[in-house]
Amino acid sequence: MDHKATALFLENAIENQQFDQAVDQLKDLRPIDIADILTLLDSDMSWKLLEKLPDRATVFSYLDPEEQMEMAFLFPRASLAKLVGEMPSDERTDLYKRLDQDQRDALLPALAQAEREDIRRLSAYAEKTAGALMTSDYATLKAQMTVAQALAALRLEAPDAETIYHAYVIDEQRKLQGVVSLRTLILASPNQIIGDIMLTKVVASNVHEDQEDVAKTIARYDLIALPIIDNNGALVGIVTHDDAMDVASDEATDDFHKSGGVSSLIGSFKDTSIRILYRKRVFWLVFLVFGNLISGVGIAHFEDVIAANLVLVFFLPLLVDSGGNAGSQSATLMVRALATGEVVMRDWFTLLGREAMVALLLGITMAAAISVIGYFRGDAMVSLVLALSMVSVVMIGCVIGMSLPFILNKFGFDPASASAPLITSVCDASGVAIYLFIASKFLVL
Amino acid sequence: MDHKATALFLENAIENQQFDQAVDQLKDLRPIDIADILTLLDSDMSWKLLEKLPDRATVFSYLDPEEQMEMAFLFPRASLAKLVGEMPSDERTDLYKRLDQDQRDALLPALAQAEREDIRRLSAYAEKTAGALMTSDYATLKAQMTVAQALAALRLEAPDAETIYHAYVIDEQRKLQGVVSLRTLILASPNQIIGDIMLTKVVASNVHEDQEDVAKTIARYDLIALPIIDNNGALVGIVTHDDAMDVASDEATDDFHKSGGVSSLIGSFKDTSIRILYRKRVFWLVFLVFGNLISGVGIAHFEDVIAANLVLVFFLPLLVDSGGNAGSQSATLMVRALATGEVVMRDWFTLLGREAMVALLLGITMAAAISVIGYFRGDAMVSLVLALSMVSVVMIGCVIGMSLPFILNKFGFDPASASAPLITSVCDASGVAIYLFIASKFLVL
Repeated sequence: MDHKATALFLENAIENQQFDQAVDQLKDLRPIDIADILTLLDSDMSWKLLEKLPDRATVFSYLDPEEQMEMAFLFPRASLAKLVGEMPSDERTDLYKRLDQDQRDALLPALAQAEREDIRRLSAYAEKTAGALMTSDYATLKAQMTVAQALAALRLEAPDAETIYHAYVIDEQRKLQGVVSLRTLILASPNQIIGDIMLTKVVASNVHEDQEDVAKTIARYDLIALPIIDNNGALVGIVTHDDAMDVASDEATDDFHKSGGVSSLIGSFKDTSIRILYRKRVFWLVFLVFGNLISGVGIAHFEDVIAANLVLVFFLPLLVDSGGNAGSQSATLMVRALATGEVVMRDWFTLLGREAMVALLLGITMAAAISVIGYFRGDAMVSLVLALSMVSVVMIGCVIGMSLPFILNKFGFDPASASAPLITSVCDASGVAIYLFIASKFLVL
Repeated sequence: MDHKATALFLENAIENQQFDQAVDQLKDLRPIDIADILTLLDSDMSWKLLEKLPDRATVFSYLDPEEQMEMAFLFPRASLAKLVGEMPSDERTDLYKRLDQDQRDALLPALAQAEREDIRRLSAYAEKTAGALMTSDYATLKAQMTVAQALAALRLEAPDAETIYHAYVIDEQRKLQGVVSLRTLILASPNQIIGDIMLTKVVASNVHEDQEDVAKTIARYDLIALPIIDNNGALVGIVTHDDAMDVASDEATDDFHKSGGVSSLIGSFKDTSIRILYRKRVFWLVFLVFGNLISGVGIAHFEDVIAANLVLVFFLPLLVDSGGNAGSQSATLMVRALATGEVVMRDWFTLLGREAMVALLLGITMAAAISVIGYFRGDAMVSLVLALSMVSVVMIGCVIGMSLPFILNKFGFDPASASAPLITSVCDASGVAIYLFIASKFLVL
């Protein structure tokens, strides 16, 4: 059965009060698939069924934020509090942060004290930091435990911890002393001491670190989970590999959108409203309209040359676009290399030399193509003007395209803001000026 | 000590034959960090040291392919064979695939039979499929085992398996029957039977599936590893979460480059030669030069209008760019949504309606901005021409931008090929035509 068919079956079963049949239908499915199916039902049907599912907290965590919010307040207060209590701590905090003050006030008293404190603590971290991403559901051990004691402790922690495959060894002040993997534990003999077998050089991130760097660390070291410590070295949470993968994907989407001149969209593109889409796009478009006026100024300045040689207009879009296209290529390569960390600020100068060489070769190739057409459409002089302009325009375009991301980065902006539309506009303005300047030197007025 | 300082220390130690000191210096570092440090040394120094490291196969796996190749043939045949034998099976196969026939012939006989067969089997799968990505170092169990027997079996498999956190239950024909996590195992009582506690609905991928889909499955289900089966349902390998993360990142880079009009770069951007960079970029640039000639044809067609109203040229780059910019935004949003799987082919029509609304609003906003300038630079008529053109150009641009990725997808091309430069050129040509057509209707000839 596909998801739609299952949803129909469930609707039918719920309407006939056959909840056992409904629950049975879902028992072999993964939580995320169950969540997808619940999304197809009405909210009140969904929660009736959800209440009866064994891993309802996990399923609930996989629902869209809007869906969660809608459903949350159909639950009686006590069941909601129970559900929220069972949720992974990072998901629970995300939900809490979306509630308004009244809803928070209604929910908090119904939660256990430990959960309330956990929510307060986790929700205090700034968005897009390790702290906002981490979960407090991790397993800890003490250095003086034996392996047998550690395994017993992990058995107790297993139902609540997001992972027990890595357990973190802490002292009385919760200072992170080491990490031990479950693999190591089951290979060790029961009487060995944790302090002797743990790894003491632990890869960890600070709680205030950017989530993108956290994801990079997890990717670099192929970790299942990364421990997060505060400024005193105390363990405050872990970030798991699946959350890191989501962050990496979201950040890639973000950069991708920026490269097309769209401000960050938060949430699903498919469900974004017209109003939000308009708002996310209008700034750059209007900004670039005014940017493009600079090209106009260039044209106005050389109006006489144009009037005397209208053939120049024929090649105008082509020439200025070529600079923009070459520049977009350079910017794209650079923005992604900066984002993946493959290239850093100090590489700029070295890369500039290579870029100039590549640009020269590209410019010459394109000049060869265009000068032939220029010769037939105009004359030898026009052909020369076009060839010279093309090489210059492409070289300038590439230098702008590869340098702008660095410059933006230098001044604390996201290098991904060096979008194709921005580069195109900047290259257009310089392209117009170069082209018409060269033309004014070689052609009759 | 940072990596450079460590490398200097090592150089010194190796020159003085103090290998113990050198090895000791590296003992607390992660394999990938050791690999980074070895890269800073000469190849022959590197391998002298590498030979003496306890987890040399892992460190070697983290080296760049070129570095691996260079170093591989400094090793005496027997040590190389030993090292290759110790490598994870997926990395080993990647190395093997890079060797030429002579090198393969030299290496194969020195390997154990099982390793030879493993290499032959894995290297037969097409690039960018699950088969090319997977490793054969996984842990298997039998359904009739008890938990105690299973744990004993996993202890034996642990040194070779990439993960023992998920163990795969197979029958005599290696058909995948279920999966059991180490978490489940240590929570179960020793006498329980694996067949009773395993999960039977296993998320698995076919060995010929695209690696991008494999990565998406791992991300969707938050898996540590995904079992890979052949057409008969027999288990042939696993793909681990860290490899999935690398694939997702590489595919994002690829799409990002395509969006900027750069063909896929394989390997490191920083180390790419001028020749390769030129080759990856020249096709689109030259192709677009000819594409842009269409704009020129539009201009030639309306030469009289332009000659009579030179002010039109002033606004030409601005208008045509605006269409291209809006179109690039649309294409970017659509390409990424198709890549993440958020949007599928059948959504096109629904999204088109929303896009048209957004485009209309954007067009009106931009028309308002430009018509004011048009009035001061020209007259009321010019202002009207500009406003009408802007709305049309932006709407056409958006429709092209959002439809082109779908059309490319439909015809089997990568939707990411709807790059900003391509969209810009297509929108330019239509923009020029629309602008000058409208102008020819309203302005004097």
